[in-house]
Amino acid sequence: MGDANIRGKPHPLDPLRPEEISQAAGIVRESNQSRDIFYRAISLAEPPKIELIKFLDSEHAGNRDAVHPARQARVQAYIAKTLHEMIVNLDTATVASNTPLPGRHSFIDTDFMAQVAAACLADEKIQREISALKLPEGATVVVEPWAYATDGMRDMKDRWTMAWFYMRLSDNPDANYYAYPLDICAEVSNSLEVVKIYRLPSGEHDKLSDEGKEFDRRKIHPNSEYHPAFVQERRTTTKPYHVFQPEGPSFSIDENHISWEKWTMRVGFNYREGMTLHDIRFEGRSLFHRLSLAEMFVPYGDPRCPYPRKAAFDLGNDGAGINANNLKLGCDCLGHIKYFDGWLSTSSGEPLKMPNVICCHEIDDGILWKHTNFRTGNAVVTRSRLLVLQTIITVSNYEYIFLFYFQQDGSIFYEVRATGIMSTAPIDLDTKVPWGTIVAPGVLAPYHQHIFCLRIDPAIDGPRNSLVVEESHPIPFTGDTDTYNPFGVGYTTTSKVIEKEAGLDLDFNTNRTFKIVNEKVTNSTTGTAVGFKLLPHYSQLLLAQPNSWHGKRARYTSHAVWVTRHHDEELFPAGRFTMQSTGEDGIGSWIEQRKDGDSSSVRNKDIVVWHTFGSTHNPRIEDWPVMPCEKMMIGLKPVNFFQGNPALDVQISTQEKNRSVLVHDARCES
Amino acid sequence: MGDANIRGKPHPLDPLRPEEISQAAGIVRESNQSRDIFYRAISLAEPPKIELIKFLDSEHAGNRDAVHPARQARVQAYIAKTLHEMIVNLDTATVASNTPLPGRHSFIDTDFMAQVAAACLADEKIQREISALKLPEGATVVVEPWAYATDGMRDMKDRWTMAWFYMRLSDNPDANYYAYPLDICAEVSNSLEVVKIYRLPSGEHDKLSDEGKEFDRRKIHPNSEYHPAFVQERRTTTKPYHVFQPEGPSFSIDENHISWEKWTMRVGFNYREGMTLHDIRFEGRSLFHRLSLAEMFVPYGDPRCPYPRKAAFDLGNDGAGINANNLKLGCDCLGHIKYFDGWLSTSSGEPLKMPNVICCHEIDDGILWKHTNFRTGNAVVTRSRLLVLQTIITVSNYEYIFLFYFQQDGSIFYEVRATGIMSTAPIDLDTKVPWGTIVAPGVLAPYHQHIFCLRIDPAIDGPRNSLVVEESHPIPFTGDTDTYNPFGVGYTTTSKVIEKEAGLDLDFNTNRTFKIVNEKVTNSTTGTAVGFKLLPHYSQLLLAQPNSWHGKRARYTSHAVWVTRHHDEELFPAGRFTMQSTGEDGIGSWIEQRKDGDSSSVRNKDIVVWHTFGSTHNPRIEDWPVMPCEKMMIGLKPVNFFQGNPALDVQISTQEKNRSVLVHDARCES
Repeated sequence: MGDANIRGKPHPLDPLRPEEISQAAGIVRESNQSRDIFYRAISLAEPPKIELIKFLDSEHAGNRDAVHPARQARVQAYIAKTLHEMIVNLDTATVASNTPLPGRHSFIDTDFMAQVAAACLADEKIQREISALKLPEGATVVVEPWAYATDGMRDMKDRWTMAWFYMRLSDNPDANYYAYPLDICAEVSNSLEVVKIYRLPSGEHDKLSDEGKEFDRRKIHPNSEYHPAFVQERRTTTKPYHVFQPEGPSFSIDENHISWEKWTMRVGFNYREGMTLHDIRFEGRSLFHRLSLAEMFVPYGDPRCPYPRKAAFDLGNDGAGINANNLKLGCDCLGHIKYFDGWLSTSSGEPLKMPNVICCHEIDDGILWKHTNFRTGNAVVTRSRLLVLQTIITVSNYEYIFLFYFQQDGSIFYEVRATGIMSTAPIDLDTKVPWGTIVAPGVLAPYHQHIFCLRIDPAIDGPRNSLVVEESHPIPFTGDTDTYNPFGVGYTTTSKVIEKEAGLDLDFNTNRTFKIVNEKVTNSTTGTAVGFKLLPHYSQLLLAQPNSWHGKRARYTSHAVWVTRHHDEELFPAGRFTMQSTGEDGIGSWIEQRKDGDSSSVRNKDIVVWHTFGSTHNPRIEDWPVMPCEKMMIGLKPVNFFQGNPALDVQISTQEKNRSVLVHDARCES
Repeated sequence: MGDANIRGKPHPLDPLRPEEISQAAGIVRESNQSRDIFYRAISLAEPPKIELIKFLDSEHAGNRDAVHPARQARVQAYIAKTLHEMIVNLDTATVASNTPLPGRHSFIDTDFMAQVAAACLADEKIQREISALKLPEGATVVVEPWAYATDGMRDMKDRWTMAWFYMRLSDNPDANYYAYPLDICAEVSNSLEVVKIYRLPSGEHDKLSDEGKEFDRRKIHPNSEYHPAFVQERRTTTKPYHVFQPEGPSFSIDENHISWEKWTMRVGFNYREGMTLHDIRFEGRSLFHRLSLAEMFVPYGDPRCPYPRKAAFDLGNDGAGINANNLKLGCDCLGHIKYFDGWLSTSSGEPLKMPNVICCHEIDDGILWKHTNFRTGNAVVTRSRLLVLQTIITVSNYEYIFLFYFQQDGSIFYEVRATGIMSTAPIDLDTKVPWGTIVAPGVLAPYHQHIFCLRIDPAIDGPRNSLVVEESHPIPFTGDTDTYNPFGVGYTTTSKVIEKEAGLDLDFNTNRTFKIVNEKVTNSTTGTAVGFKLLPHYSQLLLAQPNSWHGKRARYTSHAVWVTRHHDEELFPAGRFTMQSTGEDGIGSWIEQRKDGDSSSVRNKDIVVWHTFGSTHNPRIEDWPVMPCEKMMIGLKPVNFFQGNPALDVQISTQEKNRSVLVHDARCES
């Protein structure tokens, strides 16, 4: 990192710089002079892994002349209305490849969605329906367009949009319109034509109908606001809490490279995955090549047409980078905060700055380790400091907070917090359905799932790894005192190396543990392969039927752990193009295609491990009108990788250093 | 709380004050004038629940003349060498009941254990064995006495102790002697006689032998120390991190009563459970009558005799109160800290102060809720403040950290962190066994489990509650588009109220959710019973066979969730007397005894819910020589209890209030 030449040139893992985005757009424009180009995304085409590893090995060996792989951009654009993906070589200023993708759809176009909303409001049929609703004086109708989730009722070659309708009763556009779901919805074509208008079902056995009901004014209620413009009475009991680091933070950062407490890594950012992490090492030893959230599927459990069309791939359809929040000091992050900006692109190929999309800071996490020698009474305590990398996205109504935590003991945790506002549907007063919770008068919060997939590209002491499934089982017990298990209390572990690409399931009853190991590197003390284990988040998998469209499109949701051979193009478990997808692409298909060949072998190979997890979110009224974070946590923990506790050398905690304050009796004031 | 009369008199839930301990001991002494009394424990006999509830209802109704239940002490003592339990009425200065318990053993007596160690070292047979080991020059032998876990080889009416042997090679008594387990052990009688000396097995199929092997000096190694006297090279990279609350903490405390952010509760402390929580309310509404860690069982998985004798009830045998650490400001706790002292008693009945056994403070826990209106770009963020109550215990080699977290959104989390040093056994070099990990030359860290039980005495809007098991299931799918589930994506929940006392199991595959509800109180918006749900810790249950001694003694470890009718005496799921127990007492027996009667009904009754959880700890070398905390987390979360998000009124986060610091580029110094 100390060489000026190398610093001047982007690192192969640095996201595209703004000038590179412009350059890539220009190269595409040059090579397509006479045609309309509508850019969707211009992002780093990460180098082929084989070249990247060569570079990284050379870099970590201290070689200042490491040969950089070709610097390439991946450009997604509509050219003459057909989606194309191009790889643009920035070194040679050429289009290296150009793949037309007829019939595929790019991710959601926010401008188009705004046009859909406007088209709906301008449509006379809709205007008639709205006036038939007889909304209260001063009501403003709000249209919420959603991508149409494949349900078999329309040909998916055209782009379809579902428009759901809400209203607000205040002039203030920050009023929570999800509190007033209206019982109409519309289907809008790619040419912005309102093709069909639906009256939504209310009761459990209702079908779609054309019968217009008026808005029931008894549904008007006061308690569904969250914005400070409406909720002015706030508790004043929470006293200020400041974090101060008099010597500054413990991390150091050089562009996208972070060093902290024996860890090094690089932070990436792209329109789809948002934050990505690369080349993660501890004391210089390689652990993970790449960590990223790879997909999120949010299907709703209401079976009545048209609700099955509500099922969003929040990464594939929406993009975690595109929807990343601009994080605010002292609000989203507390303490000493370093922010990273991201760069995306506009539809005309200009660079678009996304400020403060990732924050990096430290937190205190209580005790890291402690022991008191009961013979001497001497206690030794260390406190745990964590490095946090946080990004937050807004996908219409919902917010997701994604956090990586690095610990001093060599473990990594990944947390997802779901917050924001639940997507609601109308329901008649005094009506109930078995797939939702009534959170306010006439407001149904339907059951739904959030099913995430964390992509773990391991590099445990090098790129060739294996996945081992270990279980703990009792030793058989005969009651005979002269046997192997004379008292019936013994247990041992069984270990199975996974040989072929597969989807696997969790089982806490057998303490089933997934270990990523390097079988070629033996820990000299334990005599076993060095590894890291996955601490999974136990959660229900997809509830939709495997042969439903949801099941086919999101096959990754059918197993909690997957292992595949690494392929540069296999980053997204539901496929690269999820908008109106029909299930041809994704982890299930990849494995099926390779299942009879050598390429399905995953033992001592460059493998990828995928963890599917999430939440079956059957709403509570406490999630309304804005949901307190629901947390999900995953861990990656060294298991016989080091020669002992890697945090043994953390400074012993002292009051001299930690400057805490003794609180004397604090009596009630009442 | 504002009445001087009430404040002067102890609250019925206040632990015994020192003068009350002396008084109770005196009353017992008076009534047994001519006999030897060896006090084991003098603690509050909590009032019968029926009287306590009457008092609390009256107190919360603002009645200043609430009638206090009789103030009573529970005294456990040996009288003429027989264990007795007495209830002493402090108001009338009389012994209300006196139950002799012949054949039962009290919890571990630390002084006796020290005598066992001394007796071993003084014993000539042991001295001969030690000299046969030919230990290195300067070695100090350390004896670690353990309670004898019932294995069927001895009559459990006598007290037996197992003495395990270690050595240290340094003069400093803080050297980690667990790094040198010696291959002898001894069985010591109640009269301190060394009855039997064993040479320990080494290989997988070894039996006990009398054959003496010399200590293998190749086992001497340098890397098993943790104490700063030995580990002087410590990382200096971790910069100071201070928490400062310029206006002080947000809680207020009056003796043992805590008020914080709409929560109120009382903190208790006793020799066995350590920290207990009582009368937990939110906005004055009753939630939980009592929360406590009720037991912990730690069986080892090595089947070879005499290792099955290593199986500790860390609460029943050792006591979480007795072994509570004296917490240090800035070490065990960071920020603005309020400490609570505890009071125990000596063997002569004097009060014994346990300083700083519980700490109370606040932490920032990241984002509580957030929403950005994508139409206006306006973000509203609140940060989550938690109230933390922490206690830490040392049980010989291990430390356990117990934490209750109270959230502003009405949820409670309970965390256990396991740290400290693993109990080790000797193993020959170049030998392996399938029930342990070799963590240093000749040092086996055997597989074991830590199985906890959290006792949840609910009072969801009153004492009569029910346990509901809810699951999420797909609606059947025929493929026919004219059915109830035309697209195959619908799902609903099933709900079952548990009618009879039972042990139940977890199943994340069906999103099985345990809700404690009050069926008599309906949420006016959702139309469902108000409740709280358990977020369990998914973990393997007991691996020892159900018909082994471990299985019989710790039947609570056979199910993850239990529900029973409340009985004042049923606080401990493995029974009140666990030392050398043989399985007659505990949750399994209670349920069996009542199973045919009305008293087994648990619907709309005063119930108790027990959550068994823990960890199958197959050691990693990273847990050596001192283990980074392994965390286990449980939650209790409102579900349709309130009328909306109870944290809606938390102040919006602002930099003005939170005073964070922007970190500009922090380049690597290298």
